Amino acid sequence: MISRTLARFIVASRPEDIPAAARCEAIRSVFNVIGTALGGSGDDGVGRIRAATLPFSGPSDAVLIGTRARADCLTAAFLNALAANVFDFDDTHPGTIIHPSAPVAPTLFALAGRRKMTGAELLHAFVLGAEIECRLGNAVSPGHYIRGWHITATCGVFGAAAACGKVLGLDEDAMLWALGHACAQSSGLVETLGTMAKSVGVGQSARGGLLAAFLAEGGVVGPERPIEGERGFLKVMGVPADAALVLAGLGDSWEIEKNTYKPYPCGVVLNPVIDACLALREEHTFDLREVASVIVRGNPLLRQRADRPDPESGRQAQVSAQHAAAIALVDGRAGIAEFSDAAVARLDTRAVRAKVSVVETPAFHTDSAEVEIALSSGRSLSQRIDHARGSSARPLRDADLEAKFRSLAAIGCPALDPDPLIGALWSLAEAPNAAAVIELAAPFSD
Amino acid sequence: MISRTLARFIVASRPEDIPAAARCEAIRSVFNVIGTALGGSGDDGVGRIRAATLPFSGPSDAVLIGTRARADCLTAAFLNALAANVFDFDDTHPGTIIHPSAPVAPTLFALAGRRKMTGAELLHAFVLGAEIECRLGNAVSPGHYIRGWHITATCGVFGAAAACGKVLGLDEDAMLWALGHACAQSSGLVETLGTMAKSVGVGQSARGGLLAAFLAEGGVVGPERPIEGERGFLKVMGVPADAALVLAGLGDSWEIEKNTYKPYPCGVVLNPVIDACLALREEHTFDLREVASVIVRGNPLLRQRADRPDPESGRQAQVSAQHAAAIALVDGRAGIAEFSDAAVARLDTRAVRAKVSVVETPAFHTDSAEVEIALSSGRSLSQRIDHARGSSARPLRDADLEAKFRSLAAIGCPALDPDPLIGALWSLAEAPNAAAVIELAAPFSD
Repeated sequence: MISRTLARFIVASRPEDIPAAARCEAIRSVFNVIGTALGGSGDDGVGRIRAATLPFSGPSDAVLIGTRARADCLTAAFLNALAANVFDFDDTHPGTIIHPSAPVAPTLFALAGRRKMTGAELLHAFVLGAEIECRLGNAVSPGHYIRGWHITATCGVFGAAAACGKVLGLDEDAMLWALGHACAQSSGLVETLGTMAKSVGVGQSARGGLLAAFLAEGGVVGPERPIEGERGFLKVMGVPADAALVLAGLGDSWEIEKNTYKPYPCGVVLNPVIDACLALREEHTFDLREVASVIVRGNPLLRQRADRPDPESGRQAQVSAQHAAAIALVDGRAGIAEFSDAAVARLDTRAVRAKVSVVETPAFHTDSAEVEIALSSGRSLSQRIDHARGSSARPLRDADLEAKFRSLAAIGCPALDPDPLIGALWSLAEAPNAAAVIELAAPFSD
Repeated sequence: MISRTLARFIVASRPEDIPAAARCEAIRSVFNVIGTALGGSGDDGVGRIRAATLPFSGPSDAVLIGTRARADCLTAAFLNALAANVFDFDDTHPGTIIHPSAPVAPTLFALAGRRKMTGAELLHAFVLGAEIECRLGNAVSPGHYIRGWHITATCGVFGAAAACGKVLGLDEDAMLWALGHACAQSSGLVETLGTMAKSVGVGQSARGGLLAAFLAEGGVVGPERPIEGERGFLKVMGVPADAALVLAGLGDSWEIEKNTYKPYPCGVVLNPVIDACLALREEHTFDLREVASVIVRGNPLLRQRADRPDPESGRQAQVSAQHAAAIALVDGRAGIAEFSDAAVARLDTRAVRAKVSVVETPAFHTDSAEVEIALSSGRSLSQRIDHARGSSARPLRDADLEAKFRSLAAIGCPALDPDPLIGALWSLAEAPNAAAVIELAAPFSD
C-alpha cells in the first residue's frame, strides 16, 4: 500500500501541515533554482535543445525562463527544468544527491501559466513533490545511483507528478494513477552525464511528471502499486531498495529541510578544496610562480570522482580537483566563468593545474579537505576545511543565495533586470498569482 | 564501440542492402500495425489520453490515425504508437516479445507529415529501427523483461530514434547522439501492464525516439557509449546483458524477418487454445449445455500467465485461458468484441468458463496446446494444435492480415472506408509520398 498511502498523503495535505522550517527552505530552494535556470538559459546546449523543440510547441501558456520565447506548459517544464540543472549548480539533497528542485519547481511555474495558483499553493505543492522524490531516493540509495541511474531524473518524475497532481486537485485514485504514469516514464542514465543527454533526461522527468498529472486528471487509469509492486519502481530499479524508507516518518519529517545549495558550479566534492584555496589566497601573500606543488587531501570519493589532471572542457573541469584548485588560486573566484572552456584553456591555470596532486585520506569526510602549498622558498602553506560552504553544517545564507542568483542572471540573461524577480521570489508565499512571478524571469528585450 | 558501430551501420545502410524477405516482412509489419492503430483509436482509454494531450499540441502536421484530429508530429507519434499497441494485438518479435512496429512505424508516419519521405524510404528506416530495438532486446533477454522492464518501450525508444535519425539524414556522430538521447529516456515497467499507464510508456518510447533524432539533428551532443558504457543501457538495464548479441551478424540477418502477427487480441500463449476450440466447434456438433468439462493442456507458461478463472474486465480476459476457451466455443470467433468487458460479463460465456480448467504439460511448447471436452453423454472430443496460427511455423497469410485489418478498422473507426488505405499500404514501397498514405487513415467524418 506504499503507493496508495503516498497518494492519500499528498491529497490530504493541508498548507498548515507544513512546518515553518520546511516552508522557509522551500522558498530558498525555489529562489535558488530559478537562478540556476536563468544561468542555464544562456547555455549553448540549452539553446540547441530549445531550438529543436520549440517548433512543436502548442499554446504559449508559459514563460521560458531567461528568454522572450514562450511555450506550452509541457514544453516549458521540459526546457526550464533542464536549464535549471544543466550546470549542476542547483540544489542537492544530501544522501541521495538528488537535485530536488529542477524537476518540480520549474514545472509548477509552467503549470501556473495554465492553471491559476497562488505562490503559497505552489510552495505547498513543491514541498510535497520534493518529499515524494527524495523519499523514493532514500529508499533506493545508494545502490540506484551507483548502478547507473541518474536519480534526479528517475525520482524527479514522481516528484513532478505529485506536485502537479496536488495543484490540479486530483483525488486519491487519480493521484495514484499519476504516480503510475510517472513510473512508466522513469528514466535517466549516469552514462549521459557530461553531455546534454543528461539534460534530456532531466527535462523529460519534469515534462513526464506534468503529463502524468494531466493524464490522471483526464481519467487515464494506472496500476494500483506502481512503487511497491512486484514489477514496480522499487523492485525493478532499486538494487536493492529499502521500501520501509518511503513511508518512515511521513508527515513528521520533511526532506526539503535537508536541502543544500552549491556555492560553486562543480562537483560537490570540490567545494572544500575551493574553500581552502580561496582562504589560502586571501590569508597569505605569495606569487603563483613560487608555487612548487599543491597537495589536495580529501575523502577517497574526491580522488575517485575528481582526480582529473587534464580536463579538456568546462564540463570536465567541473569534476577536476586540479582545475578547481588552480582556478581558485589564480582568479580568487570559482563561478560559472571559472568553469568555462576558456578558463580551462588558459595558460596560467594550466601551469598551476600541472602542480596539483590529489591524495586520498579516509579520515576526511566529503565536505572536508586540506590543501597544502609548497613554495620554492621552502615555505609551506596549509589550510584545512572541516565543513565546506554550502554543506549541511555550513549552509549558504540568504545573502549568499542572492549573490549567486545575481551572478547567474548576469551570465545567463544579461538583458534581465533581476531585482523585481528577486523581490517577488523572496515573497512568493504572499503572491496572489504565481504566474505573474515567473513572468518577471523573461527579459523585455533579448 | 557498440553504439558507434550501430550508428555507422544505420547511417551507411542503403536500400539495396535490405534483402527482399526483410522488405516484404516490413510491409506486412507496417500494414498490420496501422490496422491495430485504427482499432485502438476507438478505445476509451486512448480517447482519454488523446483528450488530455491535444490541448498542448503544436502545429497540425500529422494525422491521428482513425480520427479527424491532427497534432504536431511528436504528439502524433505518442498517440498513434500507443493506439497501435493498446490491445497488444500488434506484432511480436519472438524471443524478446518486443512489439517492434508500434514505437517505430507510426512515428515514421508522424514524421512524414513534417519531412517528405517516400514509402520506400519509410520502409528502409523502419527495417533499421526494428533491427536496432530487437538487437538490443536480444542482448537483454530474457532477464530484462522478467525483472520487470516493459521491453517494447525500453528498447523501442532506440528503434524510433534510429529510424527517425535515418530519415533525417543524420551523420555518424549525430546518430550516436540520437541513441544517447534515447538512452536518457528509456523507460517502461511491467507493473503498468493491464492499465493505460502501459500505453503511456509505449507512447513515450515513440515520442522520445523522434525527439532524440530531432535533438541530434540540432547538434545536441550525447555520450559516446550510451549502449555499452559502464553506466549505459546494457549494464544498467540488462540483468545481465549479452552485449555480443547486439552486433552478431549485423547486416547479414534481419530481425524483421522473424516478426509474427497475432490472430487474436490476447496473450500469445492463448493462441493454440483458441485454435483448438474453434476447430472443435467447426468439426463436431454438440450443444454447449452438454459440456461437462473443458480441459486445456499446455506449456507451463500458459498456466502461469493465463490460469484466470474469473476475469473481471476485457483486459483481464486477454490473459484468461478460461475466457478464451469459452468465448471461442460459444461464439466461434475471437476478435476485439470477444475480449470486451461486455463479452466477459455475458452469462453464456460465464457458464462455459466455469467448466474450463488448465493443466500444465511441459511437453507442450508455447505455441501448442490440447483441448479436451467431456460431454454429459460420456462422449469426449479432443483437439491438439502443434503450431498456433500466427506462430513462426504457421504465419498469418496476407489475406489473414487483411481480414484482421478490416475488422479492426470497423471496430475502431467505422466511419473510415478502409479500401484506399489497404491498397496504399500494400503498395507502400512504390508510394512517392508516405504522408499521403497515412492521410487515408483519417475518416472524412467521425
